[in-house]
Amino acid sequence: MDDEFSKIAWLRRRLALPREEGWIGIGDDAAVVAPRPAGGTVLTVDTQVEDVHFRPGFLSWREVGARALITAASDIWAMAATPSAALVSLILPQSFDDASFREVIEGVAWSAESTGARVVGGNLSAGGRFSITTTVIGWTGSRIVTRSGAHAGDGVFVTGTPGSAALGLAFLLRSEPAIPLASDFIDRWRRPPVHGPTTLALLESATAAIDISDGLLQDLGHLCEASEVGAVIRTDRLPTRSGYETCCQALGLDPTMLALAGGEDYELLFTAPPTLCDPLVTQIGEIERGSAVTVVDAAGNPIDVVDADVDHHDSRDAM
Amino acid sequence: MDDEFSKIAWLRRRLALPREEGWIGIGDDAAVVAPRPAGGTVLTVDTQVEDVHFRPGFLSWREVGARALITAASDIWAMAATPSAALVSLILPQSFDDASFREVIEGVAWSAESTGARVVGGNLSAGGRFSITTTVIGWTGSRIVTRSGAHAGDGVFVTGTPGSAALGLAFLLRSEPAIPLASDFIDRWRRPPVHGPTTLALLESATAAIDISDGLLQDLGHLCEASEVGAVIRTDRLPTRSGYETCCQALGLDPTMLALAGGEDYELLFTAPPTLCDPLVTQIGEIERGSAVTVVDAAGNPIDVVDADVDHHDSRDAM
Repeated sequence: MDDEFSKIAWLRRRLALPREEGWIGIGDDAAVVAPRPAGGTVLTVDTQVEDVHFRPGFLSWREVGARALITAASDIWAMAATPSAALVSLILPQSFDDASFREVIEGVAWSAESTGARVVGGNLSAGGRFSITTTVIGWTGSRIVTRSGAHAGDGVFVTGTPGSAALGLAFLLRSEPAIPLASDFIDRWRRPPVHGPTTLALLESATAAIDISDGLLQDLGHLCEASEVGAVIRTDRLPTRSGYETCCQALGLDPTMLALAGGEDYELLFTAPPTLCDPLVTQIGEIERGSAVTVVDAAGNPIDVVDADVDHHDSRDAM
Repeated sequence: MDDEFSKIAWLRRRLALPREEGWIGIGDDAAVVAPRPAGGTVLTVDTQVEDVHFRPGFLSWREVGARALITAASDIWAMAATPSAALVSLILPQSFDDASFREVIEGVAWSAESTGARVVGGNLSAGGRFSITTTVIGWTGSRIVTRSGAHAGDGVFVTGTPGSAALGLAFLLRSEPAIPLASDFIDRWRRPPVHGPTTLALLESATAAIDISDGLLQDLGHLCEASEVGAVIRTDRLPTRSGYETCCQALGLDPTMLALAGGEDYELLFTAPPTLCDPLVTQIGEIERGSAVTVVDAAGNPIDVVDADVDHHDSRDAM
């Protein structure tokens, strides 16, 4: 499988589409996806570069492939759309062996199955450093949820437990002997959430949504800017995973700051009428008039959130 | 414009979409493209890596951006579809300066204008070596032209003059003082053809099509394999650009072998009833029963095409 064409021949077999009217997968000049009779087409692309977004020891190659597609699909879910097809573009160093290549593709295939996005094409290039660029196309349902529809009075909701993935990454970056509780958080970083019909049903009442890969406060800021509103976040409402505070203490990290600024979660933040109540989501604040995003403690006193010193920043820019 | 967000802010302004119902460009989680009422959705992705697909001195940064989108769009045209939207994913080395970044985007914007593909999103990543991965989405007209519809008796047609781009690249790779005629061929490599409604009208009678970026014979082989047919190519029918033979002689290259195996043209090869006659295309052979692709000279004698030693191979794999 040394050359590009034998790799592509293997990919064609491994990622063959079920026979279905109107679809063409790997093997022609371009892929064809059958259009949905109604609704819009949603597109996104995301790149994961070795030594920038992950280090080799942090993820198996299978996890690299799976994570690439899921983190890209996250942007599709954040529009209340359903992933439908994906293109996977790999840059492979000369030394990259066939076994690792297959593992990456097995991870992609697994996440394609989980997310519902069929891999219909891609590209293979030589290059100096491994990277995987994943394009995901999705179909919207009856409506699209953008960042710009939030109104004063809406509640601010999140899925999952913000900070958990950043905590897992912090354990990996410190390379200290991890405490037993750590593995659960490391798993949260390694395996971002796969959303599906349940999340999409929740987004039916959403007025705006964003995925919080860059950090809860930063992404909420983007949403507020697009919607021309402000927001207040209540730290006592932030949902946490069992063992979160203990693990944060073990690493000397502020649990609240990590939840607000850690990023890496690929969970969804959305705004909706405050009457929304569902065990899968937590209301962590409200949308207000104005443009300020403020954070308050249990007593309602404002907390000064400085640019939190979390390990996440290392992973993004200079790791 | 040091950080990612100021670059994205600039991109949002530079690549703003005209206000139009149903489209969302850069600035939300994902892009939304308005679906065509009828027809399929066609998807492709292509990557250009510095020192693999081009060397810095071979192209200006503006040409790198323009070429990336056009070579990706080439796969959309080869399906008889029209480019509609594009996503541009850049990996930028730490040292990459803002002026070069802007030049890349100006090239992308120019080619977006030329091809009709609106840039609706993308991604910026840090990394060790510059690369640009371009996803193009297109809409099909009344029918899709795949690689697999060729029949015995069809004519084999090409657009452009195969070999011209490979010849231009050969001049760049040799880094000898180029003869005056060379610049025209270098331009053919630097600026791949932009197809449009005229080409699409020609493809209305096509039974199969492929773009010939990998080399005429190799790509014809893919088409024949997919269509389960053979073909004969007549070397005396190969169209050439003025000065082509003189330049080939100056470099010691076989003009016919370069035209057959040079690649890099991003022209289209298609099969259609042999009655097709149009000044924009040249019939270079016929589709036959069987599975062999043979090349014959003016007298009808078979020519043995060995794996031609053309510079193109260097550029693809190990440059």
